[in-house]
Amino acid sequence: MDVDTGGRTGRRPGPVSSRQAILDAAREEFTLRGFKGATVRAIAGRAGVDPALIRHFFGGKDGLFRASMEIPGEAFDAVLAVLDGPRDEWGERLVRGYLSLWEDPVTAAPLRATVASALGNEEAMDRFRDHLVSRVLAHMGPRLPQDDPGLRFAAAITHVVGIALGRYLLKAPPLVEHGVDDLVALVGPTVQRYLTDPLPAGLTSPPR
Amino acid sequence: MDVDTGGRTGRRPGPVSSRQAILDAAREEFTLRGFKGATVRAIAGRAGVDPALIRHFFGGKDGLFRASMEIPGEAFDAVLAVLDGPRDEWGERLVRGYLSLWEDPVTAAPLRATVASALGNEEAMDRFRDHLVSRVLAHMGPRLPQDDPGLRFAAAITHVVGIALGRYLLKAPPLVEHGVDDLVALVGPTVQRYLTDPLPAGLTSPPR
Repeated sequence: MDVDTGGRTGRRPGPVSSRQAILDAAREEFTLRGFKGATVRAIAGRAGVDPALIRHFFGGKDGLFRASMEIPGEAFDAVLAVLDGPRDEWGERLVRGYLSLWEDPVTAAPLRATVASALGNEEAMDRFRDHLVSRVLAHMGPRLPQDDPGLRFAAAITHVVGIALGRYLLKAPPLVEHGVDDLVALVGPTVQRYLTDPLPAGLTSPPR
Repeated sequence: MDVDTGGRTGRRPGPVSSRQAILDAAREEFTLRGFKGATVRAIAGRAGVDPALIRHFFGGKDGLFRASMEIPGEAFDAVLAVLDGPRDEWGERLVRGYLSLWEDPVTAAPLRATVASALGNEEAMDRFRDHLVSRVLAHMGPRLPQDDPGLRFAAAITHVVGIALGRYLLKAPPLVEHGVDDLVALVGPTVQRYLTDPLPAGLTSPPR
């Protein structure tokens, strides 16, 4: 995996590959030991760099964790951009776009590390929630029906994430035996309903 | 938490409370350190018992992990029994039944430990999948439409689990601010469709 996540063009083997080596090592340590158990020293050791370089690039463990959750910008932007497509295709496009992140090893690695380190660790979970709210919901919320955009988005995304966890982590046989097209056909219409159709009558009003 | 999970009647403070103390300690260790990181010795230390007692009750770490995933039988049976109710209420009853397990601290503890220790650890995940297939799908599959009961069940349960992870672990604001009744109203009809309505045309046939 020799991907330049720094957004630069061309090859700059030195700093880019050290940065990438640190990120790869961080994901492995966070996956194995969780956010609390992983140390900057162990990550530096695994990456074969001096711990000072981690502080230089990422400020410390917090910044490194945030960076290790970032999936390469273009792939993520593609998913955020599903709402730029036709409104009646949002559901299918969101399901296909999110599952495609898990299908590609380059984008699956940070997703896997995030899940493994965040679940079961309250501190990491807080960070992950902030990240989700500030990056994803802030982008998508304004495009959704304004009756309760947060609930719409939450129902849609937890459904898709549930399918992804079942397929790529739990490897539940029915979700592995059926291909992505089947899952898009099955789940896409539901996600579409959550995003755009009227909500059930009688829900509590959202606060604020 | 002084629950007799052994299915005995009456109080038997000695063995029952040791067994329970071991289970509580195991869940804490599995949650903190994952399946691989947790040791029988550390669990025994936390529970204040001799490691030999763990081997006596559970055979070893594998058996202890299986037992720590078991939620008290009656509560779990109540969820499995949703299919005993009227067919057109299966969706709502499954959502309410599953969320109620997370609402109750006694049943939430093992769920939380299972999620934390299984995600990110392949070995524990294998055990969890076997448990799900052998205990849950084996019970529910025969009652579902036989075109593809595994896919129906998988779509339904991952949806409900996604909502539960979003509400109880991630604490996503929209899923916390809305009560269980709202979530049942929102998600119940979807789960019902997955369980009983015709599947989309053109899905790949399930193997076997």
